[in-house]
Amino acid sequence: MAQFQRISRSKCFDGFQEIYSFFSKELQCTTRFSIYIPPKVNRENPAPVLYWLSGLTCTEENFIIKSGFQRYAAELDLVVVGPDTSPRGCNIDGEDKDYDFGTGAGFYVDATTEKYRDHYRMYSYVVRELPTVIEENFPVIPGLRSISGHSMGGHGALICSMKNPGLYKSVSAFAPISNPMVSPWGQKCFKGYLGENNQEEWKHWDATELISQYNGPDLHLMIDQGSEDEYMDHLFPENFVEACRKYSIPLDYNYRDGYNHSYYFVGTFIGQHLKMHSEVLKSSK
Amino acid sequence: MAQFQRISRSKCFDGFQEIYSFFSKELQCTTRFSIYIPPKVNRENPAPVLYWLSGLTCTEENFIIKSGFQRYAAELDLVVVGPDTSPRGCNIDGEDKDYDFGTGAGFYVDATTEKYRDHYRMYSYVVRELPTVIEENFPVIPGLRSISGHSMGGHGALICSMKNPGLYKSVSAFAPISNPMVSPWGQKCFKGYLGENNQEEWKHWDATELISQYNGPDLHLMIDQGSEDEYMDHLFPENFVEACRKYSIPLDYNYRDGYNHSYYFVGTFIGQHLKMHSEVLKSSK
Repeated sequence: MAQFQRISRSKCFDGFQEIYSFFSKELQCTTRFSIYIPPKVNRENPAPVLYWLSGLTCTEENFIIKSGFQRYAAELDLVVVGPDTSPRGCNIDGEDKDYDFGTGAGFYVDATTEKYRDHYRMYSYVVRELPTVIEENFPVIPGLRSISGHSMGGHGALICSMKNPGLYKSVSAFAPISNPMVSPWGQKCFKGYLGENNQEEWKHWDATELISQYNGPDLHLMIDQGSEDEYMDHLFPENFVEACRKYSIPLDYNYRDGYNHSYYFVGTFIGQHLKMHSEVLKSSK
Repeated sequence: MAQFQRISRSKCFDGFQEIYSFFSKELQCTTRFSIYIPPKVNRENPAPVLYWLSGLTCTEENFIIKSGFQRYAAELDLVVVGPDTSPRGCNIDGEDKDYDFGTGAGFYVDATTEKYRDHYRMYSYVVRELPTVIEENFPVIPGLRSISGHSMGGHGALICSMKNPGLYKSVSAFAPISNPMVSPWGQKCFKGYLGENNQEEWKHWDATELISQYNGPDLHLMIDQGSEDEYMDHLFPENFVEACRKYSIPLDYNYRDGYNHSYYFVGTFIGQHLKMHSEVLKSSK
């Protein structure tokens, strides 16, 4: 742990909510992540891990402050890790200009455009580098991991699991950007990170496109979507639901009457998501 | 409700978390408050109210975003109301200079100094004006109220209940500023709002002083204090605990090993506080 710096540590539901920073090789910058260690989890009693991916504008802090997940993670003996949503401070011209591109909007892809390809590698960071760091340094069971996220992070969770059959034992999402190729948010980021005239490449990072190719074990896939979501025209959950139906992919889809896009929605149902992940992870031991 | 403006409304644990603004006569400015209406509460089925007072730098939003209280309020059928922590935008010279005086730091007193007395009347606002507004406009049972708060807001909850025997059916606090006359935070605000050489007046706004005079029904008083609180030298819980012992005031005091001053601490124990308040309120019907 010599290369780590602990930023904060707070007792919460008898466990500890911590934030660390370290230099990421994939992102080529110093980055932060949050980790919650439940009370009964330690070196002698390691636990499975849920990775949580946050949405546009978030850091590693929003979810740990706003969702109240710690109560459930403490009950379920589930370690929960949350990366930042992009590299930061990379001195790329224009990086800090918009809320929905660049800083705070890494979109969980590996960029190929000249400006962004050296730093904006959130996909490889989330799928490979961060789990290695976590498994080497914290009391977790290697290989026993699931993934979830909100909005842009819901998109990230979906593509990370579908692009790596079996790597995550279960996947869930709150109001995910389900078909970014047709979403204004998705198109803006795909243009900037993957190139404007590169739609074939875009398909490799779009959940609704990927699901038609999926050929692996049961994803254990759960999605919650609020009916009053104010960003519905960026999300296209109906396209993903239809693709799952068409390709016979099991999906537990919960359309929640009256809920919007906020963390009030996430906080209401996060307990049900953690319970699902915990059950799948325990049965995968 | 003509004078009200609804700022936001989000479904949360099947109820609604809302924020309103209106012009306060006590504060002589527009102010906001939050209100959570549980799912089963409506005009035909009104509920008791818990008033929540927040700490330094907070607005009406911190508690509703960070504590996760809605889950418990929904289960217990408890309306929860949270005022802002000071007047805002009153154009008083120096009002926005410090984090611990002026804006965001009303200290729940009625100011007497010339600069502040026209606006900084958070005590009268919290004890009289806001409850009247709530009882006239929302599905609550008139007169059935309790109060709680964090840090500066814990101080506020304690003094509001002790200065008005029987007005609140129960009172609780997280890491309250328990003896502001000897606390740097308390002294700074008391000097600015009540006058530098006015220590006799200060005593009327200090929980540890007030408890020695208390002569009313059981306060149903609960305090939680973390052992690792980084602001302990502003709080002086031991002075208040000793005063309660000396004057035989029943106090449920929970000293929580390893917890700090943050909302991770509040979130961990808020469920137990709401349960206590709900039980006392239900038995007071």
